[in-house]
This record gives sequence, structure tokens and C-alpha cells, in this order.
Amino acid sequence: MLIIADNLQITNPAIERAIWEMDPQPIKDMARMSIEMGAKAIDINSGPLSREPEKHMAFLVETVQGETDVPILLDTTNPVALEAGLRASVNKAIINGFSLEPARLDAVLPLAKEYDSDIIGYLLFPNGRVPSDEAERMHVAVELYTKFQKAGLKDERLIIDPVIAPMLWQDGTRRNKEMLTLLRNLPDLLGFPVKTIGGISNLTTGPGPLDKKLIMERTYCTMLAAAGLDMALVNIFHSDTIAAIKACHVLMERGVFSWEMI
Amino acid sequence: MLIIADNLQITNPAIERAIWEMDPQPIKDMARMSIEMGAKAIDINSGPLSREPEKHMAFLVETVQGETDVPILLDTTNPVALEAGLRASVNKAIINGFSLEPARLDAVLPLAKEYDSDIIGYLLFPNGRVPSDEAERMHVAVELYTKFQKAGLKDERLIIDPVIAPMLWQDGTRRNKEMLTLLRNLPDLLGFPVKTIGGISNLTTGPGPLDKKLIMERTYCTMLAAAGLDMALVNIFHSDTIAAIKACHVLMERGVFSWEMI
Repeated sequence: MLIIADNLQITNPAIERAIWEMDPQPIKDMARMSIEMGAKAIDINSGPLSREPEKHMAFLVETVQGETDVPILLDTTNPVALEAGLRASVNKAIINGFSLEPARLDAVLPLAKEYDSDIIGYLLFPNGRVPSDEAERMHVAVELYTKFQKAGLKDERLIIDPVIAPMLWQDGTRRNKEMLTLLRNLPDLLGFPVKTIGGISNLTTGPGPLDKKLIMERTYCTMLAAAGLDMALVNIFHSDTIAAIKACHVLMERGVFSWEMI
Repeated sequence: MLIIADNLQITNPAIERAIWEMDPQPIKDMARMSIEMGAKAIDINSGPLSREPEKHMAFLVETVQGETDVPILLDTTNPVALEAGLRASVNKAIINGFSLEPARLDAVLPLAKEYDSDIIGYLLFPNGRVPSDEAERMHVAVELYTKFQKAGLKDERLIIDPVIAPMLWQDGTRRNKEMLTLLRNLPDLLGFPVKTIGGISNLTTGPGPLDKKLIMERTYCTMLAAAGLDMALVNIFHSDTIAAIKACHVLMERGVFSWEMI
């Protein structure tokens, strides 16, 4: 399971200030620390970048690329910012993302085609609602794949995000248990080994004790890895979660074992 | 996944002394601490009890029963000690265990029948060898179940231990990855929802850094729980492993979530 750092986000006040003031240092520092902690890709969550989106997204992408050559996820709802990010990308770029919401479909899928980019598709209804059971989730997955194909994109470009539910939702644990089954079944459902991604911090969104949140996070992360999730978007400073993911690599791969691998 | 404490074992010098001197206090203390830490059953690993097996096993069982009413696993290769344990049991008793080894089959299966006891069956060849791949493991499981049935025992009495491999074995990780598949497939293979158990400490047997051993242990434990393992025999003082198992309960059960559950 590939570790993707979710730390470079505009909701972090230090990052927000760095973006608007075009100050590269906090962004470089976060990118470097993410790589040091084990990230194999970096999510740039810039938000919509309402002011001068092209300039700020290009600055973000170029700053991260100055620090590392790992893939970059362009995580913005603003198609103008997204395209600026794709233009600025020298590293592999992944669009994060699209869904059946009409505005996203029409604006984002053509960019994936034009820039021959990987793209994350969220399992959400056109109105943004999260599917509530297995049948709904599979229905949305098939719809999403159909739209993706109609846009002329190649299967290997698709990465599905089945949308982890907060445990505090009334039926959150049921949803997340079913997600393990979905992850196993998606390749058969769509007819090819589709890649998958999960935003792990969703699990423990809301109030609650941090120590218990971290236990739930690393435990569920392990279950996701065993169910075949390909990529985990995580807080790279949650060191026990990162250690669990590295342990999963060892347990899921065939090879001669050494304690150095963990 | 039911937590079973593996701490009451004669390889612990304090326990060994207590057994031979018939000193109940260390045994009571260990049983009480195990329950306090979250154990729902206690394994009494007495070894063969070569001297006065009946007296010492009865003493062990009665001492544990004085402290708790949880099920007791009678973990001895000595049939005389085993029968003494079954006779002394007021709590639910589980025989740990039998395999295709002829001596174990002939001596132990009739006791399970006579005392109407649950019994753990190890997936081992008659010569004690551990099956090395999926085909061998399934073959042994079917053979074991056949012997179990011929002894006139009821399906719900059988608990299969597929024998976790040490990671340090050259192909240990491959074996343990395959075990996850086996756990999913055993109910279909045998035609009923057979219960399963795993001795978790096997995973990290041998030299290695304790901190990394504990990460591997809690991570693999989580994978086993997600694959449907019913019972885990663990060192009850490995608190992060116990926390992971409790988190698995929350994640695998359908119900309204609360942080109090972890």
C-alpha cells in the first residue's frame, strides 16, 4: 500500500500563509519531512484557490518538485487551478479527483484525457451523497467507470476512492466493514485490476480522544491493506500508522524476511 | 476475535516453581491480571507434567477456577494430565489439542468425546511437519476433520489451529499470507462455520528487536481478525496487540459506535 502524505493542505494555517505569501520554505519543509517519514507521493490540497489560482497552484507544484520527484496529487475543486497544476507538473501528476457530480465530470475528465493523467474517482452520487450500502456502492462504481470510459481514458488511469466513512456516523462501522468486501470485489466488478485509494483521516473525523483515534486508524489501515487497497492518504506524522503500513508491506509481499524491512 | 491469555505457562520460571511447590498465589495473580487486561479465556500450558501429572493439573485448574469463571484451555501433551484437567473443570474446558500425529489422535480424541469438550486441531502432518502450501494445508484440514468425525464428535466442538509460521522461516511471510486465504476458505472447505484459533507469539519467535516484533504482531493480528480468526492466543501484557484486537471488534461488528468500546 503506497503511503501518500496528506499534510500539505491549506487548512494548515502555516501552509495557508505560505501559499498566499508565495513563501516556499514551509512548503519545502513539509514536502521534505513527508518524504523522510516514508511518503511515496504527496497530496497538494490547495482548496479552491479562489485568488489567482493559476499562479498559486504553479507555485505549489514547482516548490514541491524542487524538493522531491515523487508523484503529486492535485487536490482542488477548481478546474483552473487543476489545469495550472497539470501544466506545471514535471513529476507524475494524479488528479484528485472526479465523481458523478456533473460539474466535476464535465470540467475534470477532459483534463485527465488532455494531460494523460491518472485520476481518482470518488464513489459519490451525482448530488454528492455517499452510497449507503453495497448495492449502491457497486452501482455508483459502474456508473463512474462508464463515464470514465466515455471520456476516452485508459483503464490503468483510474484510481477509485470508495470514501471511508467517519466512525461517528451512525452506521459508520457497518459502511467501513462493507468497504473491505468492496475492495476485494471491485476488480471482478469492473473487469480489470482497478487501483484504489482511501483517505484514512476520514475514519476518525470529529470529536474523540486522540490515542483511541490513532489505534482505530492504524487498525483499519491494516485491514484496508489486507483487503488490497493500493494507496493510503495519511497524516505522515502518525508514526504508528506509518509503521503499521510498513509492516503490512512485509506481511503481504513474498520474499525473504528481515527486521530491517519494517 | 476472542482474546486468550497465553501467559500461564510452565516456561515462565515463577509459574514453574508455583506448579511444583503447589503455591497458588502466582497462578491466581497471573489469572487475575489476564482477566483484568482483557482475556476472555485462559490457556493453561503445563507442559507434559512428568511428575504426578494428575495432582498438579488438578491444582492448576482449581486454582484458576478460584479466580475466574472464563473458559480454560488444557494445553498439555500428556493424556493423563489432560484427563485430570477435564475432571477438575467446572469452567468450560477446551482441549489444546490434537493433530494427525497417531499418538495424539488415539489418546486425545476419545477424551473430547467422553467429556463433551471443545477441542483444538492443529494442521500438522502425522509426522509433525507443518504443511508448506495451500494444497497441503487444505488436505490436512480435511484429513483432520475426517478423524474428528470418526471419533463421533459434533462439528461445533472443533476449533482449527492453522499454525502461524515464524516470520524468520525462509518462507514464513508467504505461509502467513496464505493463511489469511485459508481462514476465509475453511468454512466452505469443511461445509460448516468451523471455529479457528491462532497462536500469535509464533509469528515473532526467534531473535529480533522487540519493538519491531510488537508492530508485526499487532499488524498480523489485525489481518487475522479481518480474515475471520475466532480466537487469538496472545501474551496478555502486549497492550498494543490487545488494543488492536479490541479495535478490530469495533470495526468488524455492526452497531452504534462509541469511543468507550476501545
